[in-house]
Amino acid sequence: MLDLVLVGIGTGNPDHLTLQAVRELNAADLILIPRKGPNKADLADLRHTICEQALTNSACRIVEFEMPRRDVADPNYRHGVLQWHDAIARVWQETIEVNLPQGGTVALLVWGDPSLYDSTLRIASRLQPAPRIRSIPGIMSLNMLAAAHTIALNDIGAPFTVTTGRQLRDHGWPEGSNTLIVMLDGECSFQHIPSQDVIIYWGAYVGMPEQILLSGALSEIGPEIITTRAQARAHHGWIMDIYLLRRKIPEQ
Amino acid sequence: MLDLVLVGIGTGNPDHLTLQAVRELNAADLILIPRKGPNKADLADLRHTICEQALTNSACRIVEFEMPRRDVADPNYRHGVLQWHDAIARVWQETIEVNLPQGGTVALLVWGDPSLYDSTLRIASRLQPAPRIRSIPGIMSLNMLAAAHTIALNDIGAPFTVTTGRQLRDHGWPEGSNTLIVMLDGECSFQHIPSQDVIIYWGAYVGMPEQILLSGALSEIGPEIITTRAQARAHHGWIMDIYLLRRKIPEQ
Repeated sequence: MLDLVLVGIGTGNPDHLTLQAVRELNAADLILIPRKGPNKADLADLRHTICEQALTNSACRIVEFEMPRRDVADPNYRHGVLQWHDAIARVWQETIEVNLPQGGTVALLVWGDPSLYDSTLRIASRLQPAPRIRSIPGIMSLNMLAAAHTIALNDIGAPFTVTTGRQLRDHGWPEGSNTLIVMLDGECSFQHIPSQDVIIYWGAYVGMPEQILLSGALSEIGPEIITTRAQARAHHGWIMDIYLLRRKIPEQ
Repeated sequence: MLDLVLVGIGTGNPDHLTLQAVRELNAADLILIPRKGPNKADLADLRHTICEQALTNSACRIVEFEMPRRDVADPNYRHGVLQWHDAIARVWQETIEVNLPQGGTVALLVWGDPSLYDSTLRIASRLQPAPRIRSIPGIMSLNMLAAAHTIALNDIGAPFTVTTGRQLRDHGWPEGSNTLIVMLDGECSFQHIPSQDVIIYWGAYVGMPEQILLSGALSEIGPEIITTRAQARAHHGWIMDIYLLRRKIPEQ
């Protein structure tokens, strides 16, 4: 019997680990870490660093697996993602069968939280026979963005919407929320909405030593964010960023 | 000079503390804990338990303060909240002046995360002279709800909206998101929306030993949630619950 534990590890600060996450990692027989190619090597390194800091159980083995690539040429985005998830599940299955043939507990370190724009749960549901799956919550980039800017996510009693760069480009500002949190945005999609009366709180590498924060009126600071993002991405070889947009509304 | 650190402590499981939160609590000169009346005594107790487990610095003092009550008779909800925040800020200010006259570092334990439907940041901004404020992210109830049900918050690439029971009652299902997370809902406001093709994932006391989970088609499980919630509230004297609603959409 296989137990699969998805452990949210936060946004890159090893101190984001919860006491529960530390306990779960130490209770695992096997920890799987993806290898994602040289450009993202520092992210795999960070997972190793987190394991080194957290692990006191020397019986727990850490094994790397080669992360399949998504077919970005697939014109059907959703289909491309599903195929990719199938491929990842196969690699997990093989790696687990080789390293843990008698069953046991496997832990996966999930960036942020396993429930937020993360495919680990969906991939795990493809494993056969179905393992017992547990999910350990972690600090999300949206929490870290708010903490870094010392702001609240919501206006008093008001809703907010968490969305993606693609959604913002394709559908504009959704009705019903004056606050948007935009993730998975490789294209600074805030350029595609009217900037009047919108405040932006932007952060890259939030929670990490490389953290960059910019905030202000979108019309004024938007171009600076675009430039800063491009430079940081070129410098580090990769970037993870997130931003909150807030539309000013009249006081009630 | 005063440093004020708002430490997110998660949803009631002491193991939700991050390593960063443990470090920050131990670096504080003073920890303020609200006393909220006998019905919520176990929540204050839980804060004490968390401090006992986390604190290794015996120089850190824990001081309770009497939590002012909100004037629920104020017909203007927003005005009532602002007055209440003023009153809390005054109590903090007095308690800090008495216990830390020379300045130092004060920590406040914030349920969940300081950025989500929490007033601590807004109250802290009222202090004079203005302290340096830092915010330490914590596990939120919405993470814990998703982890407990082993579900993702979002559909693939899709947005979701975080809102309140009041918003759901007053404005119905907001456009733009097929997933809603409803917080601060004392009235099972899901009764006020059409239940057809809606799945609900409900949780009370999420992350705590008392945790209760229910999920299913809203039309079928809604009445059971209402009954279960009322019984649990009567039994414990208080309740904190949260739920996710997902509207079925055709596969694209």
